[in-house]
Amino acid sequence: MKTIEEHESQVRSYSRNFPATFSTSSGAYLYDEANNRYVDFFSGAGALNYGHNDEDMKQALIDYISRNGIVHSLDMATVAKESFIDNFIRYILKPRGLDYKIQFTGPTGANAVEAAVKLAQIVKGRNQIISFTNAYHGHSKGALRLTANAYYREGLEDDLSQSTTFHPFSGYLGPDIDTSVLLDKLLSDKGSGLSKPAAIILETIQGEGGINIATQQWLRNMREMTSRHGILMIIDDIQSGCGRTGDFFSFEFADIQPDMVVLSKSISGCGLPMSLLLIKPEIDAWKPGQHTGTFRGNNYAFLTAAVAIEKYWKDDQLSQKVKRESKAIVSFLHEIKEEYPGELSIRGRGFMIGLEFKDKAMAVEVSKACFKNGLVIETCGAEDQVLKLFPPLTISAESLEKGLEILNSSIVELMRNKKPVYL
Amino acid sequence: MKTIEEHESQVRSYSRNFPATFSTSSGAYLYDEANNRYVDFFSGAGALNYGHNDEDMKQALIDYISRNGIVHSLDMATVAKESFIDNFIRYILKPRGLDYKIQFTGPTGANAVEAAVKLAQIVKGRNQIISFTNAYHGHSKGALRLTANAYYREGLEDDLSQSTTFHPFSGYLGPDIDTSVLLDKLLSDKGSGLSKPAAIILETIQGEGGINIATQQWLRNMREMTSRHGILMIIDDIQSGCGRTGDFFSFEFADIQPDMVVLSKSISGCGLPMSLLLIKPEIDAWKPGQHTGTFRGNNYAFLTAAVAIEKYWKDDQLSQKVKRESKAIVSFLHEIKEEYPGELSIRGRGFMIGLEFKDKAMAVEVSKACFKNGLVIETCGAEDQVLKLFPPLTISAESLEKGLEILNSSIVELMRNKKPVYL
Amino acid sequence: MKTIEEHESQVRSYSRNFPATFSTSSGAYLYDEANNRYVDFFSGAGALNYGHNDEDMKQALIDYISRNGIVHSLDMATVAKESFIDNFIRYILKPRGLDYKIQFTGPTGANAVEAAVKLAQIVKGRNQIISFTNAYHGHSKGALRLTANAYYREGLEDDLSQSTTFHPFSGYLGPDIDTSVLLDKLLSDKGSGLSKPAAIILETIQGEGGINIATQQWLRNMREMTSRHGILMIIDDIQSGCGRTGDFFSFEFADIQPDMVVLSKSISGCGLPMSLLLIKPEIDAWKPGQHTGTFRGNNYAFLTAAVAIEKYWKDDQLSQKVKRESKAIVSFLHEIKEEYPGELSIRGRGFMIGLEFKDKAMAVEVSKACFKNGLVIETCGAEDQVLKLFPPLTISAESLEKGLEILNSSIVELMRNKKPVYL
Amino acid sequence: MKTIEEHESQVRSYSRNFPATFSTSSGAYLYDEANNRYVDFFSGAGALNYGHNDEDMKQALIDYISRNGIVHSLDMATVAKESFIDNFIRYILKPRGLDYKIQFTGPTGANAVEAAVKLAQIVKGRNQIISFTNAYHGHSKGALRLTANAYYREGLEDDLSQSTTFHPFSGYLGPDIDTSVLLDKLLSDKGSGLSKPAAIILETIQGEGGINIATQQWLRNMREMTSRHGILMIIDDIQSGCGRTGDFFSFEFADIQPDMVVLSKSISGCGLPMSLLLIKPEIDAWKPGQHTGTFRGNNYAFLTAAVAIEKYWKDDQLSQKVKRESKAIVSFLHEIKEEYPGELSIRGRGFMIGLEFKDKAMAVEVSKACFKNGLVIETCGAEDQVLKLFPPLTISAESLEKGLEILNSSIVELMRNKKPVYL
Repeated sequence: MKTIEEHESQVRSYSRNFPATFSTSSGAYLYDEANNRYVDFFSGAGALNYGHNDEDMKQALIDYISRNGIVHSLDMATVAKESFIDNFIRYILKPRGLDYKIQFTGPTGANAVEAAVKLAQIVKGRNQIISFTNAYHGHSKGALRLTANAYYREGLEDDLSQSTTFHPFSGYLGPDIDTSVLLDKLLSDKGSGLSKPAAIILETIQGEGGINIATQQWLRNMREMTSRHGILMIIDDIQSGCGRTGDFFSFEFADIQPDMVVLSKSISGCGLPMSLLLIKPEIDAWKPGQHTGTFRGNNYAFLTAAVAIEKYWKDDQLSQKVKRESKAIVSFLHEIKEEYPGELSIRGRGFMIGLEFKDKAMAVEVSKACFKNGLVIETCGAEDQVLKLFPPLTISAESLEKGLEILNSSIVELMRNKKPVYL
Repeated sequence: MKTIEEHESQVRSYSRNFPATFSTSSGAYLYDEANNRYVDFFSGAGALNYGHNDEDMKQALIDYISRNGIVHSLDMATVAKESFIDNFIRYILKPRGLDYKIQFTGPTGANAVEAAVKLAQIVKGRNQIISFTNAYHGHSKGALRLTANAYYREGLEDDLSQSTTFHPFSGYLGPDIDTSVLLDKLLSDKGSGLSKPAAIILETIQGEGGINIATQQWLRNMREMTSRHGILMIIDDIQSGCGRTGDFFSFEFADIQPDMVVLSKSISGCGLPMSLLLIKPEIDAWKPGQHTGTFRGNNYAFLTAAVAIEKYWKDDQLSQKVKRESKAIVSFLHEIKEEYPGELSIRGRGFMIGLEFKDKAMAVEVSKACFKNGLVIETCGAEDQVLKLFPPLTISAESLEKGLEILNSSIVELMRNKKPVYL
Repeated sequence: MKTIEEHESQVRSYSRNFPATFSTSSGAYLYDEANNRYVDFFSGAGALNYGHNDEDMKQALIDYISRNGIVHSLDMATVAKESFIDNFIRYILKPRGLDYKIQFTGPTGANAVEAAVKLAQIVKGRNQIISFTNAYHGHSKGALRLTANAYYREGLEDDLSQSTTFHPFSGYLGPDIDTSVLLDKLLSDKGSGLSKPAAIILETIQGEGGINIATQQWLRNMREMTSRHGILMIIDDIQSGCGRTGDFFSFEFADIQPDMVVLSKSISGCGLPMSLLLIKPEIDAWKPGQHTGTFRGNNYAFLTAAVAIEKYWKDDQLSQKVKRESKAIVSFLHEIKEEYPGELSIRGRGFMIGLEFKDKAMAVEVSKACFKNGLVIETCGAEDQVLKLFPPLTISAESLEKGLEILNSSIVELMRNKKPVYL
Repeated sequence: MKTIEEHESQVRSYSRNFPATFSTSSGAYLYDEANNRYVDFFSGAGALNYGHNDEDMKQALIDYISRNGIVHSLDMATVAKESFIDNFIRYILKPRGLDYKIQFTGPTGANAVEAAVKLAQIVKGRNQIISFTNAYHGHSKGALRLTANAYYREGLEDDLSQSTTFHPFSGYLGPDIDTSVLLDKLLSDKGSGLSKPAAIILETIQGEGGINIATQQWLRNMREMTSRHGILMIIDDIQSGCGRTGDFFSFEFADIQPDMVVLSKSISGCGLPMSLLLIKPEIDAWKPGQHTGTFRGNNYAFLTAAVAIEKYWKDDQLSQKVKRESKAIVSFLHEIKEEYPGELSIRGRGFMIGLEFKDKAMAVEVSKACFKNGLVIETCGAEDQVLKLFPPLTISAESLEKGLEILNSSIVELMRNKKPVYL
């Protein structure tokens, strides 16, 4: 930790929130240098949906390394890449009736977002993109433009102020106003001042933005309305995809087909850098090499991704588990909530659950207390006012219970000392 | 290959130039599915400076995986990360008298470029950045703005036209005009129209741009002049760093200290995604988490990077080897050149050598012929008119000779059939 | 007309709507070459509030010209300019308790808007400006950015997409939603994505945008809220100022003091090019000559402006007349409306009155029919769906009656032939 | 003056440089309130090429006003406008073999520049515009983007940093480098980073920028090269047009035909606000009313403009006079120059002559001394280092001599007291 404090830029963040030097990990557990154990309700911010160090992935990797498997390949064809594509088509796209071309972008979600936006602009011949309140799409300029949180934009506002409009997300104006209808009105009105966008980009559940959930109806309206106006719909499923909501894609429940889908985080199965963009074949207008990058061919990631896809998505067992246990977690949280009338609110789908504190500063306090008590859990929302429950999808019943208990006791401990808030 | 042709976006590029499905690799050799062997004069576009599947790195990885080492850690402290930092300080920064903070950005060079530019804008409170003719810095919007090649900008020109000015690179206006002096004039002249930039960003050797080499004097002028004007100097050493030019950093020969340095590609030692930004401590003005990203903690990469730094930079043997063999390669190329008066020109430093063809289309033809003959070598320059010799730094004498022979015979073969060009 | 059709750019517009070559004018009447007479319900789009060729202004001009009065003076001091300033302070600012510095910008409203926006950006050190749905502020780039109508933005959307956000104007989301409250919410929410603007700019009645009227409460909320957030409030009173709404400034009824006010159109009294910007002294941060222009000193305009200010604003007779007759016009329109249930809606203040047709195309038809019948009247709104009643403030009772009769008979004539619309 | 100092914004500028309240004017003379007389070597910054209060224009105006001629007409057809167009076609365009459509923009040069740029962007479907070092095109955002002087851009640099590149003007890189060839190279090179512009815009003599003169060859190269690349060429003849260089258009000597020409300043003949844009018929792609504005129909200006065109351009007498006397002025300046070796440089064409001082601050000192001695003359250049001789084209021999004598004696007086400068 001294090494890091001395030599790493002050931009470092999680090493402040979770002040330990981690050494090993397995399943739903992290261990630090002193072998302290932590239940993981964080899952690498969604990059570790299948838990840590899955034995099948480990073995595949060791075998691959031992036989001098290709590590780095840019976008050349490799055995590992082909095996991933085959499994992805077979277990993910085909069963869902989806037809997409796959673009392997640089291995970060932000880079896949950048590619999606650029392709939309090229295909449509116009630059405007619509993003949403509390959206989070990454930190490179093309993605940061679309990211709402003021903290990330500070000092850069003027440089980011181009080709982007933020529209109120589902529910932002209260339950009585359907903001998709408002967007339709603005797009239809020649006097609205809103330039017709090339695309809208959205998360079906805003993870970093505070676990804000788009309704089924809103998503369907958005799909219908963008098609009618000739606007592309991009879904950023970086955090909410790969089973996090119970289904592989977070938009399956609304029965819609976006024009582009961004996947990253858990796509490699074990947390290795990998991203991809799904593109409707009719808009795959790239010229060869028009969007490129050095690390598009991370073969270790392709390898473990192929294992993960087959292991967890050849049937619906994982999906059923997540949906079932999600209800249990929500019930548990409701019990806590009832203890503190008016203090908490709960929302979520699958293993993507937020617990918002009326007293905004409490969420960070609880997160800190949990860490001391052996649970890694982070906060989200523009003011870090929401505690974000993100266990591995594969977590065992015991580990889940263990984690929830730590959470409960940490809240109880803090609420006891807390003065009431009158807002 | 069929899988890839059917399902991958048409953006794919190298799989067209090098049409084989690769399976394994070792040292300076790649092998395809049918076990055909190819000498590698490409080195993953600079990501594989130490060759393929270094035995020490392989063993370290297998051990780490076997003991459930942390894979993914965002920017939490881990044992693997600390070992990398320790080695980097000890073997790289300290011996060169350099004092930088390290920022682990998203694991792509483009992301580190984005971070550098954002930090410069925040620190200086102004947005303008100066890039250079034929510059290449990546494909996310903030990096693409700085990338000169029209092919990558097509259809996006208007969206990229903000806060950036391209200035002629060293030598662009011929040997008699020092373009650093011209930039100084423009910056000093209140009537030039050039807004004072937050930073300039440059490669000391433009790799993708055609192996264009900045002179020592030009680099020193740039350093002196930017300091005098209160402008930050960012060196993008993604491709030219990590020993490619013979020294670890490409700017060492000019004896300058940039305000920020971007490293990526070969920094992990074996081609795993990893990037970092070096920042002078006095401008490390980030707030915690202000630039973030999921894959900043690729621990496999930290692990192999730590091995690579210690193995190859604890002494100057590799450096001496590269400088020595560089001369041999250039001599070899000059012999070829003499066979075809007026057709070829040669330039480079270390193992970053370009062979430009007067008949621009020839470079691609030679690259194709080489591949058929068992050598992987790519082209660069805005019109792909330059053949780019990029062998692993660790290549054996025999492999190097083998590769050069294939190159020679491929050129001979093509030049024989070629009609003379009169331009 | 042949000259104009042959040699003028096809951008010409009013010469198509009102196809006559005009020769002379007096009071509320225009005369064409053939001496046909037209009642003027157009008033030069608000530039002729005091009617045509006011005898006092004519005489002052003739005297001035005869004695070789200065015509053009840039921003040098002249006798004519000083007399205007004296009268403006004495009859306009002082009696209303207003304290503003006066900037004489280029002699177009758009130029004064540009100056206001630039000053706001300089003073606040940030670039974002908030404009509103259906706003109209002019056609130079800095003003066009703020102008909502898609017709004017066509082909330029991407170039205009910078530093501007359009927010719903008063009433845009229906009577139940106060859009000033929504703006306050977005500005207060760190997750809204809305960059804090330097200023908001608004018309209290949107003239070109369709006679949309901001409520007193909305204006007061805007004033309070912008002050609280440290945002400047600019009122564009180009069309709605100079008595058009009954008061000299359109915002007097809401009892607010904007930080900047833009005046143009009728400020010269007789339609000569002139514009000015009123600036709260504490934000008059210009450096000498920082916003300049050749025609800031149109002395004929200063001269007639001084006459107009004294003649029409030394007491409240004109103001009372307009408020009184406004009611009469509205009553008249309501009688027409009752003849065609569901077809018409009426809105306005003072002599700025809109008649909207449910069947949007009707407004243009009525305007054309009126012209044939001897009345000049134009349309407004993003789809030209609103007939805009803009008589000179000084119109005589007989002329007003004459104009209204032509309007009525033209509507009757067209509605007779019209098929019902079911929307 | 007290009125102005108290109530006018501190942006005022000329009233500081020429601190008198002006009252009347005639020919080449200005008179202040106290009836002090000043020779005018300023000509309203080029808006008064035909001197003050031309008797024919005065009489035409008085007659027009007396008979209730239309004052304000937007872009409706009027008798006055048609007479201007007729004369402009007959005496200006036809004899020069030029075929242009005329657009009457808002009555400022900046507005015509805005229209030209917008039309170029619409026609070409791309936004980039190339302007030049030391260019001056006005202060609205679209024009200010193209204006090089840092003083005007201060605090707005980031907002102006879009779609514009400044290229070195003719001679900027010394006599040995033809910057038109450099621009051709950048446009032809796919690696230059320069986006293909919609248009270039230039002044043939940069007035505000310091009397920098484009050579005939440079202008011809620019015309040839832009045509070849499919780029429009806009000439801003606001200051250098209307006879200022001896010919009506400043580009006649180079025998080129721009795609668009901007005229303003002296076009009205007497300093009234008026501007127009000449457009090659094949690119007149405006939709009706797409660029509009209140004061496009300043009929007083049309009237005097028609008089001026006929009076001064029906033959070549004025043109010959200016060319003849230009030589005399330059000879006179050379005599002064010889008195102060190395201190002065002279450049110009027609009555657009600059006298640059090596000791930059001297130009302003001389201007001040001249004013005290009865001569109005201003400075230009990014550091106000150039004295700008701009007498009315119609100035009498005696007045010209008088002005030059005052200039000479003011220089002598100041140089006597000045310490030598060693640079």
